Amino acid sequence: AIGLAVFASDALSSTAYATQEMMVILALAGAGAFHFSIPLSFGIVILLTILTFSYEQTIHAYPGGGGAYIVARDNLGELPAQTAGAALLMDYILTVAVSISSGVAQIVSAAPTLFPYRVWIAVALVMFIMVINLRGVKESGIVFSIPTYFFIIMMYTTVILGLLKYFTGSLMPVINPPEIEMIHAAHPITFFLILRAFSNGTAAVTGVEAISNGITAFREPRSKNAGQTLIIMAFILGSLLLGITFLSYNIGALPSESETVISQMMRTIYEGRGVMYIAGIVATTVILVMAANTAFADFPRLSALHAGDGFLPRQMTFRGSRLVYSYGIVSLSVIASLLIIIFQASVTNLIPLYAIGVFLSFTLSQFGMARRWWKVGHLQPGEERVEKGSTLRFENGWQYKLVINGFGALVTFLVMMVFGITKFLDGAWIVIILTPILVSIFYAIHFHYKRVASRLSLTNYNVPPKIRRHRVILTVGGVHRGSLTALRYARMITDDVTAVHVTIDPEESQRIQKKWEIWGDGVRLVVLDSPYRLFVEPLLEYIEEIAKNMQPNELLTIVVPQFIARGKATQLLHQRTADTLRKELLFQKNIVITEVPYQLGE
Amino acid sequence: AIGLAVFASDALSSTAYATQEMMVILALAGAGAFHFSIPLSFGIVILLTILTFSYEQTIHAYPGGGGAYIVARDNLGELPAQTAGAALLMDYILTVAVSISSGVAQIVSAAPTLFPYRVWIAVALVMFIMVINLRGVKESGIVFSIPTYFFIIMMYTTVILGLLKYFTGSLMPVINPPEIEMIHAAHPITFFLILRAFSNGTAAVTGVEAISNGITAFREPRSKNAGQTLIIMAFILGSLLLGITFLSYNIGALPSESETVISQMMRTIYEGRGVMYIAGIVATTVILVMAANTAFADFPRLSALHAGDGFLPRQMTFRGSRLVYSYGIVSLSVIASLLIIIFQASVTNLIPLYAIGVFLSFTLSQFGMARRWWKVGHLQPGEERVEKGSTLRFENGWQYKLVINGFGALVTFLVMMVFGITKFLDGAWIVIILTPILVSIFYAIHFHYKRVASRLSLTNYNVPPKIRRHRVILTVGGVHRGSLTALRYARMITDDVTAVHVTIDPEESQRIQKKWEIWGDGVRLVVLDSPYRLFVEPLLEYIEEIAKNMQPNELLTIVVPQFIARGKATQLLHQRTADTLRKELLFQKNIVITEVPYQLGE
Ligand SMILES: [K+]
Ligand SMILES: [K+]
Ligand SMILES: [K+]
Ligand SMILES: [K+]
Ligand SMILES: [K+]
Ligand SMILES: [K+]
Repeated sequence: AIGLAVFASDALSSTAYATQEMMVILALAGAGAFHFSIPLSFGIVILLTILTFSYEQTIHAYPGGGGAYIVARDNLGELPAQTAGAALLMDYILTVAVSISSGVAQIVSAAPTLFPYRVWIAVALVMFIMVINLRGVKESGIVFSIPTYFFIIMMYTTVILGLLKYFTGSLMPVINPPEIEMIHAAHPITFFLILRAFSNGTAAVTGVEAISNGITAFREPRSKNAGQTLIIMAFILGSLLLGITFLSYNIGALPSESETVISQMMRTIYEGRGVMYIAGIVATTVILVMAANTAFADFPRLSALHAGDGFLPRQMTFRGSRLVYSYGIVSLSVIASLLIIIFQASVTNLIPLYAIGVFLSFTLSQFGMARRWWKVGHLQPGEERVEKGSTLRFENGWQYKLVINGFGALVTFLVMMVFGITKFLDGAWIVIILTPILVSIFYAIHFHYKRVASRLSLTNYNVPPKIRRHRVILTVGGVHRGSLTALRYARMITDDVTAVHVTIDPEESQRIQKKWEIWGDGVRLVVLDSPYRLFVEPLLEYIEEIAKNMQPNELLTIVVPQFIARGKATQLLHQRTADTLRKELLFQKNIVITEVPYQLGE
Repeated sequence: AIGLAVFASDALSSTAYATQEMMVILALAGAGAFHFSIPLSFGIVILLTILTFSYEQTIHAYPGGGGAYIVARDNLGELPAQTAGAALLMDYILTVAVSISSGVAQIVSAAPTLFPYRVWIAVALVMFIMVINLRGVKESGIVFSIPTYFFIIMMYTTVILGLLKYFTGSLMPVINPPEIEMIHAAHPITFFLILRAFSNGTAAVTGVEAISNGITAFREPRSKNAGQTLIIMAFILGSLLLGITFLSYNIGALPSESETVISQMMRTIYEGRGVMYIAGIVATTVILVMAANTAFADFPRLSALHAGDGFLPRQMTFRGSRLVYSYGIVSLSVIASLLIIIFQASVTNLIPLYAIGVFLSFTLSQFGMARRWWKVGHLQPGEERVEKGSTLRFENGWQYKLVINGFGALVTFLVMMVFGITKFLDGAWIVIILTPILVSIFYAIHFHYKRVASRLSLTNYNVPPKIRRHRVILTVGGVHRGSLTALRYARMITDDVTAVHVTIDPEESQRIQKKWEIWGDGVRLVVLDSPYRLFVEPLLEYIEEIAKNMQPNELLTIVVPQFIARGKATQLLHQRTADTLRKELLFQKNIVITEVPYQLGE
């Protein structure tokens, strides 16, 4: 049951905006077109049913987790997998932008004075989630389950109460519905308009794939539990969508940026903005924020998969690489915030960008599953084929399964095409352009790694000649415990040490030379005059002079003493010479720069 | 003559605002008080004369450059020197803020439509100078001299033409002077008001010290040339100040934020906003920008002195430390811009902060000089005492010199006190609070270095035991040319090498182990399993386990192979493991982290 709570927020939260977004399009043909919202909802429930059957099969086939990326990779190949990855990436970004925008729309419905600040509230919410995720959240199932169950209970209570009122004839129309400028200039009710409304409604099914990604979080028997959860979730989602749409139509709710349809429905059923109304709005807002949060949780997981296959920086493979992980979280937040700002925190403006990525990943995933059943059908009974994401064994009835996923692929493909065509000018073009760009970036990274691998390959590798000479240059700023510690290190790794001191003050240089005679352990000290008060430049010149005359079997180590202070601020008082040298000598072969730390203690 | 051009812009540019700022105060007592501006200007010329005599002596005593910091340090001690440094620092910041604000006031006078944008124009100008200085300007004397000479010629032409008109009776009053809200609510003409006006006027002498800092830029005989230049500059400055004040009074110019007195004078003398008017405004604006630029040039020079004495981060001692230098330039720009924004680019608002720092440095410098003559007078003839900034020899007539500098010190001290008291509430309090804070920061840095020096001291230093064991841990991500290069390095610096591989994939780990058997040169390979997909953590655990059991005469080096890619973007695809380890193991004794680069080539 925890599984439902964790993975359902993304899917269930869409009921907060799907009905309204259908109505926004229908409103173009006038209020008389609103009754289409009910058959359209049934259409979406059919789509949801198809997806549920399809994903139920995925869950059993990929008990280790069957996201679109894995299914496409194992069954369709590299390019479809990368395409699915790009689609998912955009799905995550838009899940954040849409969910937060819808959440803020609910807040603004309850507190209309906040309307002018909605963009900033939305950005602030994204930043809040970002900070939480940067600090690292333990995905505690119980904490996550409270808002989900609260939302489910609140929504069912509202819908059932509303239906009771409807059947007893006591359901009133909305008092003071928001004003919209549609009534005049009515559009004819064309087939294309109905398709556009349907496209908007498909936002309702975004997020149903979440469970198939997270099967490993379920208790054993995993696939069975996950599959059942999927079916329960789909049932809740479908019934809520139908109920909300039916009630919204019957109370005469109007789609508007200033008050959401959910808010109109709640205040009509609860007869005003009382406690129940507030509870309903809070429940809706919170589950939308939770939905946005899932994108933050999924994002590093997908990145790790990509990185493991060499299509994103390798270091993303590992968790706990805080720096890299942080880059990802911050990028996701910044891009989502930019979208929110550009589209003024309007779900209606954002929705044309949303579902296309989702349906692209659906299509690739279902088509990959169909391909998998084909492969399964052509194995010998008893034969096993191990793939990266799952193990293939012959199964009876593979033909039926192929038909189910094949049909799912066809339907989602058609929906995607409808969406792309009807929403092209509204913003879908952005996603259609961005997808190939993202895929190209993935490939550019991949080719870099391939090129590196071939450079590093040990085929035809001639073991380089044994090192004949290992010289050490020890940089000396003064004669003290720090430099003597470094000297000890230098003497240990070779017998061929030269100490070098850069001076801008002849007097000080004499003092250092005298001290070095006592403490320098017989090591030669070279003093480099720096009349122009430069430090790194004379040192580099000296090193490069030596490097020029080095044989291929010679090696040079620059040993740099480094004070380590306790505090970050005090550390700034001590130059990091090694870092500077390393940057300058990066491309010089056979030079190693070694920093020997000297801890200053308290 | 180049010397004049380079060092005069700071001093001469003040004529652009000194007269107006005197008038701003006098205006409080009504237009009838404006005639006081003429005796006040004479007072300021007397002050200028005293300063010129005083600094002439400094120039001869410190042929290597005698800024307030050096003179105070050599003659008064550490605290006065640090105080002088803090005063100079604030002088630089305010020179930028005041000069740029005045420059923008000139622009806005010529193009009144720009008035609402004056703050942004000012900030943009500061940023422009910042960028120029970050990119590094060659201080070309000729380029610098053109604007200075242009300004001098334009100003003399204007003043002489104005005086001719005055004496022939053809000088008209200003047409359409800017409106100011003073005429009513007149203040009585009190002595305090006159003192306040005088305080504002002292801005005219800010910058006269510039030559004494930059003596080394003059041709031999340096001191003589520099001294003559100082006298010429003072003469120009004094005569221009008198001329401008006299003419401004006689045309009935009114001080205003919307049109500068300079602009009113120019358009009255040139009878409208013709070519000569424009040339005059351009000349004034450009010299003000040049004055701001000198602060950018002086700032790193002063920082280097401070740093050399251990009161600022040591690395500032060296030029060419671009990073540090850039921090300074950016800080100067940001603080000056903030002041401009806070004080709305108004010279009148900024002036109470300005002169107090300048006069504090004047006082310390003159008092230091007086002290120096005392020391000179008490040497035996023929005796020499070498100080950091100059060499002391007995001189006849030291008593007269002492009197001149002592008198200078007294006068500048009195002016500072008058300024501090009359301007306290107007903004001088900010500087009075900031000065001790800055001095405290300098001392905090100094004490850190002193503590470090005592920690590092070799007195009572027991040479640590000879190292008995030097272990190397080689991190291995895969078996390839990069890791073998690192292995070769590791084998060269010790015989005691252990290779370590962190794995998240048992299959890959087997492959690596097999390859290591072939290429690993007999070195032991430890495989660390990382079930949670962590990388650095298991490695750190392993290292810390070893470190715990290390003897004081044991040493551990972590050798990390590092790919070096050509581009900065591609380098991001390769983790910098050594940096991460170094950060984590910073405070562990006897551990050195060495990155062995492997250049990937084209
Ligand atoms: K969703
Ligand atoms: K959904
Ligand atoms: K989603
Ligand atoms: K000045
Ligand atoms: K001046
Ligand atoms: K100055």
